[in-house]
Amino acid sequence: MIKVEEAIAIIEANSTKMPVELISVHKALGYVLAEKVFSPINMPPFRQSAMDGYAFIHSIKHQYDVVGISQAGDHSNIKLKPNEAIRIFTGAFVPDAADTVVMQEHVMANKDSILIATMPPKLSNVRPKGEQIGKDEVVFEAGTLITPAAIGFLASLGITEIEVYKKPKVAVLVTGNELVKPGKNLKKGKIFESNSVMLEAALQTIGIKKTKVYRVKDNLKATKQALKSILKKFDIVLISGGISVGDYDFVKEALLQNNVKELFYKINQKPGKPMFFGSKNETLVFALPGNPASSLTNFYIYVSPAVKNKMGFSEIHKPKVVRKLNAAITNNTGKTLFLKARYDETNVTVLNGQSSAMLNTFAIANSLLIVPQDVEEYKKNQLVTLLPID
Amino acid sequence: MIKVEEAIAIIEANSTKMPVELISVHKALGYVLAEKVFSPINMPPFRQSAMDGYAFIHSIKHQYDVVGISQAGDHSNIKLKPNEAIRIFTGAFVPDAADTVVMQEHVMANKDSILIATMPPKLSNVRPKGEQIGKDEVVFEAGTLITPAAIGFLASLGITEIEVYKKPKVAVLVTGNELVKPGKNLKKGKIFESNSVMLEAALQTIGIKKTKVYRVKDNLKATKQALKSILKKFDIVLISGGISVGDYDFVKEALLQNNVKELFYKINQKPGKPMFFGSKNETLVFALPGNPASSLTNFYIYVSPAVKNKMGFSEIHKPKVVRKLNAAITNNTGKTLFLKARYDETNVTVLNGQSSAMLNTFAIANSLLIVPQDVEEYKKNQLVTLLPID
Repeated sequence: MIKVEEAIAIIEANSTKMPVELISVHKALGYVLAEKVFSPINMPPFRQSAMDGYAFIHSIKHQYDVVGISQAGDHSNIKLKPNEAIRIFTGAFVPDAADTVVMQEHVMANKDSILIATMPPKLSNVRPKGEQIGKDEVVFEAGTLITPAAIGFLASLGITEIEVYKKPKVAVLVTGNELVKPGKNLKKGKIFESNSVMLEAALQTIGIKKTKVYRVKDNLKATKQALKSILKKFDIVLISGGISVGDYDFVKEALLQNNVKELFYKINQKPGKPMFFGSKNETLVFALPGNPASSLTNFYIYVSPAVKNKMGFSEIHKPKVVRKLNAAITNNTGKTLFLKARYDETNVTVLNGQSSAMLNTFAIANSLLIVPQDVEEYKKNQLVTLLPID
Repeated sequence: MIKVEEAIAIIEANSTKMPVELISVHKALGYVLAEKVFSPINMPPFRQSAMDGYAFIHSIKHQYDVVGISQAGDHSNIKLKPNEAIRIFTGAFVPDAADTVVMQEHVMANKDSILIATMPPKLSNVRPKGEQIGKDEVVFEAGTLITPAAIGFLASLGITEIEVYKKPKVAVLVTGNELVKPGKNLKKGKIFESNSVMLEAALQTIGIKKTKVYRVKDNLKATKQALKSILKKFDIVLISGGISVGDYDFVKEALLQNNVKELFYKINQKPGKPMFFGSKNETLVFALPGNPASSLTNFYIYVSPAVKNKMGFSEIHKPKVVRKLNAAITNNTGKTLFLKARYDETNVTVLNGQSSAMLNTFAIANSLLIVPQDVEEYKKNQLVTLLPID
């Protein structure tokens, strides 16, 4: 049995990055850049007006003849004289001769001439060529997470494809003779199988859209055979159930017989103690507890960071949140507790129903309160650390 | 010109909830329940063992004959006598006669009998029928956001379909003669069009997966005609550009001629002032500024809450974050500022490059620092309020 921190460290050390692939920028949300990106152009590509107004050569004069127009998209390089101006719009090309744009609100305009009421300083309202970024300059470093703003910036530079780390292919293997698919008839002694659909949803929240679900009966042969082909095809294998010390828990044996290297088994925590973590080649295997709340807890604490690590995220753990505790907590278990909790702007409340089988508490929780194994008590009003969950 | 708070209130008041639809639980992540859900079963459906161990009738005796076995999924209702026990596993049916389960670690077991070394209190390790939820009890209230845990809980009750608010259909209409699709050749005076792909990605982060993008030239007739059919087919229309006071901005006129009701035009903020908000029947129209950073700012502040409101979310604004400011800020604009910022566990830094055309700053920001219009200064080390962004 190992400590929570040890388990986290072992998983982090073993979740190597995925291979890279070239994907379209418009499909890249949530991926991480695998290489530095350079700008193919100056941005803006030309001197741009920052306002709707008039471009002119700055001088002490206030009156100018209007000799032309530059709309966004135009490129009429009018040769301005010192007493001339052109009508110009936001984003439009500023003719080479002009150095300044006056906003239209600061001008009195006739049909063919303007009088500048408020003279702007020279160079005002002209965005220099390459102001945002110059040609061949670095747009993003490797390791950058692709957000909506990053997609917008890449597109604005005309970049259509980028190298990213692939998303891992994830399989969920469900074990348990007691399990019946929701929608089927529930015979005596059986329960509905809910972990696969829950884990699929949890994977979706971190960008893994397609998960393949397999089901197997509680026997060594079937489990071993199912694992044999799954281990070849997937980067991450989540196994639900069959990993505690019961006589009918074949999963660990089936894994070892498939040459999965055991990296740890059992963690000093509650809930979620009976978990196995191992690897075969680059494939990671998480055998999660069958109890739904334990399974989901260990997903957030262990699986999610591993997926993010494989995808190249630099921040694989969610930022923690600190809140004031509404009521004291004791921990006489000697284990690290993960308590379903709900926090608001200032405080946090530990919810009723912490049993490992109880998923309803999880559904109203927005965080896990972490009570380290060596902490015997948190006092009321003490500041405590939370892991936000979706 | 209205205040930011007024704009937010007007949008909230006009974004009515979408119609409801029945969807599969396994596709329901991120939807909001439109009706109360009741449990069709008791959960657990029978008295369940919480441990691997032995079920027996609690007494003062420590020795019991093992007369049978109950695995998860079994339903052998053995008639236990007072000196008998059965082998039992986590999640398995506890025979009616038995009242207590002793965990296997507290037992010395022979082939056919056990000696209980540590006697548990009566009723220990037996999960009562209906402990999590009883038949016909409320599972979730209307308005509940469907999380992975909620999906797991619904599935565990055998529920396969739920009534949710539909997701709005969103169109993006891009205007601007200066715009060229990324990948194409960039002629003089032109820039790459990046707002559509940026807005599509931003919509994805709030669960809107499919967005239809339309493009139109800067003229009244084309804009008016495009809007005519778009307004019939979509619940939310985002228009990019063409909404400032320039002579070539036809969008507002095209909207009014299509009988879109103007709810406001221009907001006292920087960036993002030139925005139009209106409605036609239940369809909402946001004409966003063409400048990328302004467009994305207004997406986070105005569009995202409207989408969430239509989807039935009870919390439509992201929880705000409070941090200590690294350097003083002055606001002599009389406008509300939305500054791209980056916060860590304790502090926040306002980033360089706040111009409305600059998207690169947005790509490294994780929040917008809100400086209200009536605040002229934030001092160094002052606590300030941030809106986290993805």
